[in-house]
Amino acid sequence: MMDMKEIKIKQIDGGVTAAAGFKAAGVAAGIKYTGRYDMAMVCSEADAVAAATFTSNVVKAAPVKYDMKVVNDSPCVRAVVVNSGIANAATGEQGMRLCENTAKAAAEALGIPASSVLIGSTGVIGEQIPLDKICAGVKELAAKLADTREAAADAERAIMTTDTVPKEVAVTVEIGGKTVTIGGMSKGSGMIHPNMCTMLAYICTDCDISKEMLDRAVKSDIADTFNMITVDGDTSTNDTYIVMANGLAHNPKIVSEGDDFDAFCAALHYVDEYLARAMAKDGEGATALFEAKVIGADTKENAKILARSVVGSSLCKAAIYGHDSNFGRFLCALGYSGVNFDPDKVSLKYESRAGSVCVFKKGLKADYSEDEATAVLSEDEVTVVIDMAAGDAKATAWGCDLSYDYVKINADYRS
Amino acid sequence: MMDMKEIKIKQIDGGVTAAAGFKAAGVAAGIKYTGRYDMAMVCSEADAVAAATFTSNVVKAAPVKYDMKVVNDSPCVRAVVVNSGIANAATGEQGMRLCENTAKAAAEALGIPASSVLIGSTGVIGEQIPLDKICAGVKELAAKLADTREAAADAERAIMTTDTVPKEVAVTVEIGGKTVTIGGMSKGSGMIHPNMCTMLAYICTDCDISKEMLDRAVKSDIADTFNMITVDGDTSTNDTYIVMANGLAHNPKIVSEGDDFDAFCAALHYVDEYLARAMAKDGEGATALFEAKVIGADTKENAKILARSVVGSSLCKAAIYGHDSNFGRFLCALGYSGVNFDPDKVSLKYESRAGSVCVFKKGLKADYSEDEATAVLSEDEVTVVIDMAAGDAKATAWGCDLSYDYVKINADYRS
Repeated sequence: MMDMKEIKIKQIDGGVTAAAGFKAAGVAAGIKYTGRYDMAMVCSEADAVAAATFTSNVVKAAPVKYDMKVVNDSPCVRAVVVNSGIANAATGEQGMRLCENTAKAAAEALGIPASSVLIGSTGVIGEQIPLDKICAGVKELAAKLADTREAAADAERAIMTTDTVPKEVAVTVEIGGKTVTIGGMSKGSGMIHPNMCTMLAYICTDCDISKEMLDRAVKSDIADTFNMITVDGDTSTNDTYIVMANGLAHNPKIVSEGDDFDAFCAALHYVDEYLARAMAKDGEGATALFEAKVIGADTKENAKILARSVVGSSLCKAAIYGHDSNFGRFLCALGYSGVNFDPDKVSLKYESRAGSVCVFKKGLKADYSEDEATAVLSEDEVTVVIDMAAGDAKATAWGCDLSYDYVKINADYRS
Repeated sequence: MMDMKEIKIKQIDGGVTAAAGFKAAGVAAGIKYTGRYDMAMVCSEADAVAAATFTSNVVKAAPVKYDMKVVNDSPCVRAVVVNSGIANAATGEQGMRLCENTAKAAAEALGIPASSVLIGSTGVIGEQIPLDKICAGVKELAAKLADTREAAADAERAIMTTDTVPKEVAVTVEIGGKTVTIGGMSKGSGMIHPNMCTMLAYICTDCDISKEMLDRAVKSDIADTFNMITVDGDTSTNDTYIVMANGLAHNPKIVSEGDDFDAFCAALHYVDEYLARAMAKDGEGATALFEAKVIGADTKENAKILARSVVGSSLCKAAIYGHDSNFGRFLCALGYSGVNFDPDKVSLKYESRAGSVCVFKKGLKADYSEDEATAVLSEDEVTVVIDMAAGDAKATAWGCDLSYDYVKINADYRS
């Protein structure tokens, strides 16, 4: 978290339509599911610059490859079209053509260049998306676009797969005497792991900022937020994070580092961390948000590796689910992370709304009450604080517990 | 698998007492559990050379640190004392002293040097083992030692934790006109992952072989067997694999490479692969052995990384549990393994006793029957064959499916 002493960020009600000039819509297009929203559109009434991050998976879905090109080549973007149900991954040439045709259909319906349309998909891998349904969906979406709370909520519902709750957030921040708004939505519940996950996130801001500075803000923040969550260690083929900035807040354009840039970054960080935590907490089958906070590490990079190893361990996750103070598992997960350290210096503490209890102190079991530990672990947001006593670096990672329901959801996801 | 055209390996009934000169015993010492065997001893009547591999976890249990020193410093070993229930990990100085005192007690009871005694532990991390119970157990074990099938079975039962079946195997092979026997037992069910896992394996052979050549045989074989299994991605603090060779088969001593060494390696490989597969199949909560066979990879190292990524993926494991032909998950796990490849060349096939079905061919979904795929995936040993079409290298990894019971076992393991 950066220094925020002068920066006032205010969370407000809303999602992707919170910032000036953004409209959204959701419809039931029958892509794969019937009777539920499965297509969303977000549209900016003015040209926007975009910055993005995509999956690190070698197997990249067609919309990911398509968007990479758009973000790289197009000077501006105007709209995003997203579907759930089918991921359009491992779909070869036909899958790429579907993206092109979807963009064309949206361009026609909205009266904008096809090169300004981004595409997103989430769902089953290996199946083709029916083009006729996508085209019909695009028309319906274009007609329904609105800048209301309800329109944002419709879009959020449409991009959900195994998510149990829609995820949205909006904040305002003062930049150069103007109120800048950032609103976002995200989707992701399983296949969530560092370096982008089956996760779609769309952030809309009315900030006036150059593409270069927007890009810089995104790259540095993603590393500490979205890339620090894990649900099951599986990094998907479709992960996409896109920020669009349309400048309608009329702040002095951010073209370099300085106070204005810092304020924007702080607000973006708030939005990113909020959505990242919301996704971790809504991990498939999760009953609790599981946060690992590493302090006293020798380097920031090692702190991150250690924190992620703990939240990614099936045994640690199962212990959180069981409210079981099996601290050896946390120690063990630190030990196989790949980071070298002295186990005799390590201390562990559990924290939650129910209190705080130290269970392991400088290499040995601490004197603590099991009942107290169980009480702390029984909350729906649990933090394990790990003090490496090796330096000043720290990092936080987010995950969730491993429950019966995770298995249930994933043993028959397709049916 | 090495070339075995001239080498006849015969599997025989038995475990750690199969080779000449090895005795074993198991007793209920009440270390943590009551009313079940929790201490084992294996003893060679003649001096043996030992080779070993231990956990790569930075947090190493006291017995691991202790054994590393014994294997490194002692010219010969005579006995192993193992307990289950408490892992003697994260136990500081007191834990190290317990190992020393256990070795002393065994040395006294058996009339051998304390420096020839190895120690093993498995169980909960962070608790101290009661010395009085260990000492009483050691005495009882020494008095019970026998070279029978039953004695081997007692030892196997004693080292189990969440294992549902004891794991043992024995083979014979001709070396220089003599029949050499290798017998082994192992334990491991959870926390099983490449680079040694909560896994204890003790292999006893009457082969006459130099320590140096035994070491070489072990190092090369472990990489293709024990280090290719994963149950949950967690590498434990206590993993130990030890081979003891006492020379009582009176074969011409193996001191260099050649036919005799090849024959020994082939037999050891049989034993190691057998025990590794048995551990994967008995993974906590497992209903099926899940094998990933990568062929056509560009390098052996990449083939191994790809195979392990697939058997280690929670989503792939859950798909196997659900008998669900969700081939996108296998593709996805290949994609985030860290290996670079062309997804459009990849083909996937399921194999089991029920048949074989190709589900993905050169980057696109194959034309196959879902019912047939489900039938193939419903057996208790399922193989996913992955053809990378990029070279000749191959590798196999073993894991198990992810079931409700895995979560159940691990949410309340300590209770």
